[in-house]
Amino acid sequence: MPLSTALRVAAIQPFYVMEILARARDLEARGRSIIHMEIGEPDFVTPQPIIDAGKRAMDRGDTHYTPATGLTALREAIADFYDGRYGVRPAPERIIITPGASGALLLTVALLVNPGSRVLTTDPGYPCNRHFVRLMEGEAVSLPVTAETNFQLTPGMIEDNWTPTTAAVLLASPANPTGAVSKHEYLADIAACTQRLGGALIVDEIYHGLTYSGTAPSVLNVSDGAFVINSFSKYFGMTGWRLGWMVVPEGYTAGVDKLAQNIFLAAPTIAQHAALAAFTAETAAILEQRRMEFMRRRDFLLPALRDLGFHIPATPQGAFYLYAGCERFCDDSQTFAADILENAGVAITPGLDFGTYRAREHVRFAYTTSMENLEEGVMRLKRYLS
Amino acid sequence: MPLSTALRVAAIQPFYVMEILARARDLEARGRSIIHMEIGEPDFVTPQPIIDAGKRAMDRGDTHYTPATGLTALREAIADFYDGRYGVRPAPERIIITPGASGALLLTVALLVNPGSRVLTTDPGYPCNRHFVRLMEGEAVSLPVTAETNFQLTPGMIEDNWTPTTAAVLLASPANPTGAVSKHEYLADIAACTQRLGGALIVDEIYHGLTYSGTAPSVLNVSDGAFVINSFSKYFGMTGWRLGWMVVPEGYTAGVDKLAQNIFLAAPTIAQHAALAAFTAETAAILEQRRMEFMRRRDFLLPALRDLGFHIPATPQGAFYLYAGCERFCDDSQTFAADILENAGVAITPGLDFGTYRAREHVRFAYTTSMENLEEGVMRLKRYLS
Repeated sequence: MPLSTALRVAAIQPFYVMEILARARDLEARGRSIIHMEIGEPDFVTPQPIIDAGKRAMDRGDTHYTPATGLTALREAIADFYDGRYGVRPAPERIIITPGASGALLLTVALLVNPGSRVLTTDPGYPCNRHFVRLMEGEAVSLPVTAETNFQLTPGMIEDNWTPTTAAVLLASPANPTGAVSKHEYLADIAACTQRLGGALIVDEIYHGLTYSGTAPSVLNVSDGAFVINSFSKYFGMTGWRLGWMVVPEGYTAGVDKLAQNIFLAAPTIAQHAALAAFTAETAAILEQRRMEFMRRRDFLLPALRDLGFHIPATPQGAFYLYAGCERFCDDSQTFAADILENAGVAITPGLDFGTYRAREHVRFAYTTSMENLEEGVMRLKRYLS
Repeated sequence: MPLSTALRVAAIQPFYVMEILARARDLEARGRSIIHMEIGEPDFVTPQPIIDAGKRAMDRGDTHYTPATGLTALREAIADFYDGRYGVRPAPERIIITPGASGALLLTVALLVNPGSRVLTTDPGYPCNRHFVRLMEGEAVSLPVTAETNFQLTPGMIEDNWTPTTAAVLLASPANPTGAVSKHEYLADIAACTQRLGGALIVDEIYHGLTYSGTAPSVLNVSDGAFVINSFSKYFGMTGWRLGWMVVPEGYTAGVDKLAQNIFLAAPTIAQHAALAAFTAETAAILEQRRMEFMRRRDFLLPALRDLGFHIPATPQGAFYLYAGCERFCDDSQTFAADILENAGVAITPGLDFGTYRAREHVRFAYTTSMENLEEGVMRLKRYLS
C-alpha cells in the first residue's frame, strides 16, 4: 500500500468470529458438517407479515428517500409500542429511525463524544460499542465485570472511574455476550448516578423482547434523559434489512437529524414500510412463538454445557447467548475455539471478541440454530472433550 | 438540553434545502401547488426488473446479513459492469458494497483521514463530503472553483495548497451542483499530481451513467491507485434502497472490511439481491430511456433559464443539475429561493448548501421532475421575475 491509513484503523480490531466463520465455511465447502453456534443472528427468516408489507411498498413504488429521521408513521408506531409494552410513551419526535442499531450507535457517539472524551462501558461487552467511540477519537474505558454484579457496572464503579473528560456510560440490557438483563432498580440507580455526575446514559436495548422471565424494563421506564439504542434485527427478525431506531431526550432531535442527513441521508425505505407490520397482532404471535423457542433452546443448552464442564454461574435471562468459562479445558479460548471447530465441527466465538478481561477463559455459545443442531453440537462436544 | 453535545455537531451544517422542502410541504398542505426543482433525487420509481428481483429475494427468505463487504455475486457483477462500460475490470476483491454512497464516503474518510488531516475539495461541492471529513476530525479545505476550470481543482491549485498534513484530494465527476464532467486527460493529470504529492485521490462517481455527450471516463481508466465512490441511487434509480459501492486500490480491502464490520455490519441484503438485476439488458434499456429523458429536460431548462436572465456559463454534461448565477435578481440567493417559493411556487436550492464561494449569487435547479412540471415552473418564474 503506497498510502498510510489513519491511526484508528490499526486501533479497531476485526471480529475474531469472522475468522472462525470463514474457516467453518471453508470446511463446509470441503464436505465437513459444521454446527454453527458462533453467529449472533437468529436463524429464523423475517416474519411473513413484514415481508408482505415490504412487497406491498415495492408494488406501490415506495422506493424514494424518506426524511432523515424516518417515516412519521413508523416513529408513531414505535411510540405506541413503548406505550403498550412498557407503559411509557416517548413523543414520536424523540424517536429517530436509523440504518440498524449501528446507525443509532454512530449517531449517538457522534452527538456526544468529543476527541479525548471517555465513555465507560463493560468488559465483556459488544465490541462495536468501543470501536464507535474510537472512531470518533474518544476513549472507551471498558471496566471488568463479573456475574457478581450481573455483568454490569455499579454506581460505585462509575463514580470511581469518572473524570472531568468522561462523557457517558454505555450499557446493554439484555447484554451481549452474557445475556444479563438489568432490573428496574438498577437502571434507576445508574440513571441517577450518571445524571448526578453530569454525563449521558446510553442503553443498548437491541435484545429487548428476547427475555425469558417477564418483560425487561426499558431505561425509559426510569428516565427520560437517557439515550436508547434499539433495532428491528434481533427480536423482530429483520437483520438483513438494516433497520433500527434511537430514542433521544427532548431537545436533541435537531442535532441528530442534522448528523443523520449528512451521515446516511435516511434508513432504507422499503424496510421502514415493512417494519410497520412488525407491530401487528399477527406478527406478535409469530414473535412470541420464536421467543418460546429461544427459551426452549436456552433451557436445553445451559445445563448441557454445565454438564460438560463449562462454567456458567448465572442463568442468563435474555438475548440468545451463553458466555461460558472454559478454564477447565484450556488457557487460551481462541486456540480452544479453533480446536473445537477443526476437531468437533462446532463453531463458537472466542472471548477475545468481547474484551480482554478473562477473555482467554471464555467462549460464547449462540443458540441461534435449531434444537436438532444444538443437540448434535452438544454430542460432538461431549465426544471431543471427554 | 442538560448535556453538551460534541463540538462537531455545531460545525456540521444542516442542508438549507431541507428548510425549503419543509416550507414547500407546508404550502402544499395548505393547497398551494409547488413545482419541485430542489430535490436531488430522480422522480422515477426503481426499474421493475430490480423491484422484481428484490421480491424474489424476499420470497426465498434472503433476509439475513451478508458479509460486510457484500455479496460476492454483486461484487463480480460490478467488476463486469466496469469491464463492459469502461473497458477496465477491477478485481472483485477491490469492490466493497456499502449502504449508499454515504457508507462508502464514511469508510473512505475513516480509512484515510487522521484528526487534523486536510482534504482538498471544491467549493461549490457536495456538502456531505466536507462534513464526513469534519466527522473524522479532519479539515476539509474547499477551494473556490469556477467554470473556467470546469469547476474542478487544477494540479496547480492542488500543489499550491498541499501541506505535510494534507491526506487526500476529493473530487466528483459528474459534479453536484455544477453537472461538470471531467475528461480523461484531466483525471490522469490529477491522479499523477496526487500520487507525486503522496496523497490519496478520492473520486465521487455517483452520477456516472447520467452523462449527455458520451460515457464519462472513470478514474479507474487512468489509475488503479484511486478510491472510487459510487451508488445505485441516481443512475440505477435506487435511492431509497441505500446501496452503493466503493473501489479501493489493491491492499486496502482488509482495512475497509474491518471498518465496515464495525460501522454498519453489512449493506441491506434485499437491496443487494435486487441490484443484481441492475445490470441486465432489460434494465439497461429502461435506464437509457431515462437518461434520454434527463437530457431532454436539460435541453429545455438550460436555454429557458438563460432566457430568464440566469447565468449558466457552460453546458453541464452530466448529473441532473443546473448551477445558475442569479446575480441579476438578488444579492442573497437564500432570500431569493425563499421568495421564489412563496411567490412563484417554485422550490430551488440556495447556493449556500454547496459552500460559501459566490454561494449567495447562485441557486441550483434540479431537473428531477417531469417536462410538464419544468415548463410550468419556467412559466411561473417568468411571470414572477419579469
